[in-house]
Parts: sequence; structure tokens; C-alpha cells
Amino acid sequence: MAEEGVPGATDFPVKRPREEEEENGVSASAVSMELEGNKEQPDCISTVIPGWFSEISPMWPGEAHSLKVEKILFQGKSEYQSVMVFQSSTYGKVLILDGVIQLTERDECAYQEMITHLPLCSIPNPKKVLVIGGGDGGVLREVSRHSSIEQIDICEIDKMVVDVSKQFFPDIAVGYDDPRVNLHIGDGVAFLKAVPEGTYDAVIVDSSDPVGPAQELFEKPFFQSVSNALRPGGVVCTQAESIWLHMDIIEGIVANCRQIFKGSVNYAWTTVPTYPSGVIGFMLCSTEGPPVDFKHPVNPIDANESSNKCKGPLKFYNSEIHTAAFCLPSFAKKVIESKAK
Amino acid sequence: MAEEGVPGATDFPVKRPREEEEENGVSASAVSMELEGNKEQPDCISTVIPGWFSEISPMWPGEAHSLKVEKILFQGKSEYQSVMVFQSSTYGKVLILDGVIQLTERDECAYQEMITHLPLCSIPNPKKVLVIGGGDGGVLREVSRHSSIEQIDICEIDKMVVDVSKQFFPDIAVGYDDPRVNLHIGDGVAFLKAVPEGTYDAVIVDSSDPVGPAQELFEKPFFQSVSNALRPGGVVCTQAESIWLHMDIIEGIVANCRQIFKGSVNYAWTTVPTYPSGVIGFMLCSTEGPPVDFKHPVNPIDANESSNKCKGPLKFYNSEIHTAAFCLPSFAKKVIESKAK
Repeated sequence: MAEEGVPGATDFPVKRPREEEEENGVSASAVSMELEGNKEQPDCISTVIPGWFSEISPMWPGEAHSLKVEKILFQGKSEYQSVMVFQSSTYGKVLILDGVIQLTERDECAYQEMITHLPLCSIPNPKKVLVIGGGDGGVLREVSRHSSIEQIDICEIDKMVVDVSKQFFPDIAVGYDDPRVNLHIGDGVAFLKAVPEGTYDAVIVDSSDPVGPAQELFEKPFFQSVSNALRPGGVVCTQAESIWLHMDIIEGIVANCRQIFKGSVNYAWTTVPTYPSGVIGFMLCSTEGPPVDFKHPVNPIDANESSNKCKGPLKFYNSEIHTAAFCLPSFAKKVIESKAK
Repeated sequence: MAEEGVPGATDFPVKRPREEEEENGVSASAVSMELEGNKEQPDCISTVIPGWFSEISPMWPGEAHSLKVEKILFQGKSEYQSVMVFQSSTYGKVLILDGVIQLTERDECAYQEMITHLPLCSIPNPKKVLVIGGGDGGVLREVSRHSSIEQIDICEIDKMVVDVSKQFFPDIAVGYDDPRVNLHIGDGVAFLKAVPEGTYDAVIVDSSDPVGPAQELFEKPFFQSVSNALRPGGVVCTQAESIWLHMDIIEGIVANCRQIFKGSVNYAWTTVPTYPSGVIGFMLCSTEGPPVDFKHPVNPIDANESSNKCKGPLKFYNSEIHTAAFCLPSFAKKVIESKAK
């Protein structure tokens, strides 16, 4: 039970911010210079300034979202990325990877529920599911609400993300408590290549942005591996950026998917306040086989009250918002539908 | 034609920010103190720091969205509020009232198209429309796409907003060029009280947040006046805040509307990246009379190509996203539907 503690948590060295100066030498009074001088910062790593965290990246130039920090709970550097957790003043605890907000306790429900139930509610009786990324465990929590599921494999590259989530985000890492879950620490690309053909009913790719460790997860060879790992009529859902910021990236993903997934190729989106531009999208594709109509869920979860016992009720997802997520603003529809043909 | 110049523009004194110090005495190097010290700032007015504009308000504590400023184009103080226009580096020109972003050229389409076409596409043959607020002219631009409309009245309290929009936002203020438009500068509450009963097919309330000049536009007597001004089966659409930030305000608005509008009471939402939390909602209500099913538009505008000549094509709205806008996340649905009964 998540409430009872943090199973398997490691004792991390917790660093505290100093009053006047951060470790990297940026002083509190240099905030505006820091904002201005983003170009000079290596690895696009935003800096925690005393009082506030600002998310600055060339992925969304000219804008920044900031959250007020109550207390920094963890700062570390794994083999792959920098990892930080802080208590914010109004969004609960926040997980940051390489300076980019991955989740906040206040709005994680929108992302985790949508990336999971959009694919799983679109096929009858999913039994075997693979999660690539998603080390925080939130997608696992949502997958495990489906009683038809027998096997949940997850391949996360960065063990530090798993450990940090188990220590600081028990209501999210609760997903790991499910006995159907098998955790593999390793490269998702390599893992998928080794999967026997047609193994999974669904693959969920819960990745960070296509810079850093997640870059390959947006490329064509990866989609080919996903397709091979899926049964005929199997489904994939991948994190697919923002229609407001990244139509160029999305255009490329749609074009790649159209070549590889011969069932159907769709784009859906949802609102997540702490993601840049306030929205995040998903590619939903199926392989050749029994047809999948993603827009009309055949496996509704709304009424499945038994799933709520350990995990609490669904906060965001319902069948209506499932269908609505596929309705795109005209500017996005035009680009996506032209690529999808 | 908007492209030919700025009809009726006033010659405003344009103030430039000084290098080291803003007019209010906040120095460039004091940014973090300023962020921290928001409590002390009068009127929640965010300050332009050299390089960036940060939107800070007790309406969304603990978070701030910032836009990089290329050039400040206008700063003034009207009888009602402070008014600022700046050129941002990635969102086009931006209009700020009392420190809060009202619109940016890059994403204004989402707000203006949805607040207008959600009500007008829900009734057959709208003829007389009243806009309360909306001084920038964007809603007028959208209303005037509807060829059935004979009369468009607008009541904006602050002439400076109208003038500034005509000078700096010609593609938005183009709405004023329509000969069906009658501009009234004055208090929307008083204007509505004087409207003969049953005058309008639709009333659109394009207000700022319920602090400052727009406060009364969220209160029951105002909704009663709107109801009186509408014909039987007439519709109102009002700006109704964010489901992520303001469920308490929304709950109150829904309860008020339910008492006053005896046709139907609905909540819809859309994505606007530069609004706090990235979403904005609308109350859509109808008066007793011919029933209005807001979720299924009877007056589609998608095919109305003639409207595109001066104003450009619709960028955001289409009939699918109209219907989708009424699908709410479970956490919001629960509150809104319980109040709506």
C-alpha cells in the first residue's frame, strides 16, 4: 500500500539550496541575466533560483513556466540525466529531469490516465502490456486498473528515476506494487529488439522530450521495433509533444507512423498545466489485423470500481474525454490529416 | 482593411523601459525578490523585467508564466486599469491589462473563435448579438463571419483598450470594420439593464478575471440582466476561468446560472497556452424557449468560405472541437454536474 511507506526506497543524499548561491555559482540576484543568458547554459539545464524553479529550454523558446519552491527534496545526477525533486507551494511535489518538469502531484493524473487508458480502452481484453520509460510508475498504476491484464513489462533506462519515485512519490510509484509488473532497467530500444514478434497487446511509450536519453524513441527504427513486438491489431501510444509548439516534430512522427503502422494512425491531446503550452499529445497507432477504432472505446474503465481500492478513483479520464481527445483544432488537423493520408 | 493602417488610432505616448530601473523602482537585479515579494505589490501588477514579462497573481499562486520581451510598444493607465502592449520574441504582440495577459497574436485564435462560435453555431440564424467587454475587437471579427447577423452591439468599459487594439493589433481590431458593429463605451452592467427585454439572440461576455473592472460580470444580478436581454431560447457565452485553478469560482457561476437560465446550463473549455494553466472555460446557457443543444451545433460555420476574405480562415474552431469542448475531465464533471442539477 502506498500509504504505508516507500517500499524499496534508497536513502539519497538530499542537498539543500544555499541562501545566496546555487552550486553552479548563479547568485540569487542574477535571475534576469540567467533568463537572458540561456544560450550559454550547457545542456539546457534550468537552475533553481532561491524561491522559484523556472523551466527554460530551446524546445519552447521565448517562454518559461515557473513554480514556487518550498523545499528541494532531492538533487542527483544519474548516468543519463540530472534528477531533481522539490516540494512546490501549489502543485505538490515535482519531478524534474534535465531541467524539464516531468510531473507534479497536482496534474499528473491527466497525463498518466490519458496515455494509458486511450490505448487500453480501445481494445478488448488487453492481456500483455509493455511500458517503455515511465520509470515513475504512474503509467503502471493506471495499467494495473485493468483486470484483464496478466503481464505488465516495463523497461526504464534510468534506475534513479524509479528509486526517486518510490521514495518521494508513493501515490505514483504504487504502480510497482502490482505483482503483474516486471521491471527491466535498460535501454528500451534494445529491449524491444529482443522481444519475440507479436508478444504484446499494447505498448505505451512514456518518454521525455526528443533530446537526451529519449531521442531514439521518436525515430523510425524504434517504431518498427514496436510494430514487430505487437500482435496483429495491437496498439501503441507514445508521448507526442504539443500541437502549439511542436507541429514540425509531430508532422515527422505522423509520417513515420503512417509508413509503419498499417492499422490506423491517430493523434490525440490533453491538458496538462505544467507542460509547456499546457497541452501534451499522443500518437495512437494499431498494427494490421483486427481493426481498432481509437475514437470509440470498446473497453470502458469508468465503471470498474474494483480498480479504485488501492489507487483511488480516476480523476481525469472518462469515455467522453477519450473520444474528445481525438478532436483537433483546425490548424493541427490540417497538418496531421494531410500526413496521415 | 486592417492591413492598410490603423483607423482611428490615437497617438499614445510610448514609454520605453530604462536599462537599470523600471518606473516603479524595481531594479533589474531584483527579479527574484520581486517574485518572492508579490504580496507587497499593489494591484497584483506584474512588472516588466528587462528581457522578460512575468505574470504573477494571487489568482494563480505559486506559478508564473513568462514571455521574452523584444520591445515594449505601449504602456498607459486608463481610468480603469493599466494597459501594456509588447512585442514578444515568440508569441507575437501581447496585450496586458493590470499585469495579466489578455491575448497574444500567436494563440488568440483559440479564445476568440471558441467564445464566439460555441454560442453562435448552437442556434439557427442568429441576427442580433451583444458583446460585453471584448474591446480588442477579436470577438467582433468572429461574430462578423456569420452572414445571418444584422446587428452587432458591443459595450466595452475602457476606450483605451479599443484604441490600443486598433493601433497595435490590426488583425484583431479588424472586427470594428464591419458596418453591422455599434460600439458603446460604457459599463456593461448598466448597458444591459437598459436593454429592452428579449432583444438579443446571443450575448457574449468577453471579460477579464473577476477582480478589477470585470468583477460584477460574474455575479447573479448581471446574469439576470443578460437573461432579460435575451429572446426566449437565446444564448449566452461567458468567460468562465480554468478548471485546473478556479473550480470554486466555476462552482459559484454554475450555481448562479442554474437559478437564472431555465433552458440549459453547460460548461465548455479550450486550450490557450498563454492563459494560466493553459486552459480557459466558458459558461454556455440558454433561456427558456426553443431548446438549445449546445453540444450539437445546428449552424455550422466550417463551410462558410465567404467569411474568410477579410479575416483569414478559421484557425482553431471546427464542428468536432465544438462538441469535444463540452467533454470534461472527471474531476470537473463531478463538481459541475452536481451544481447543474
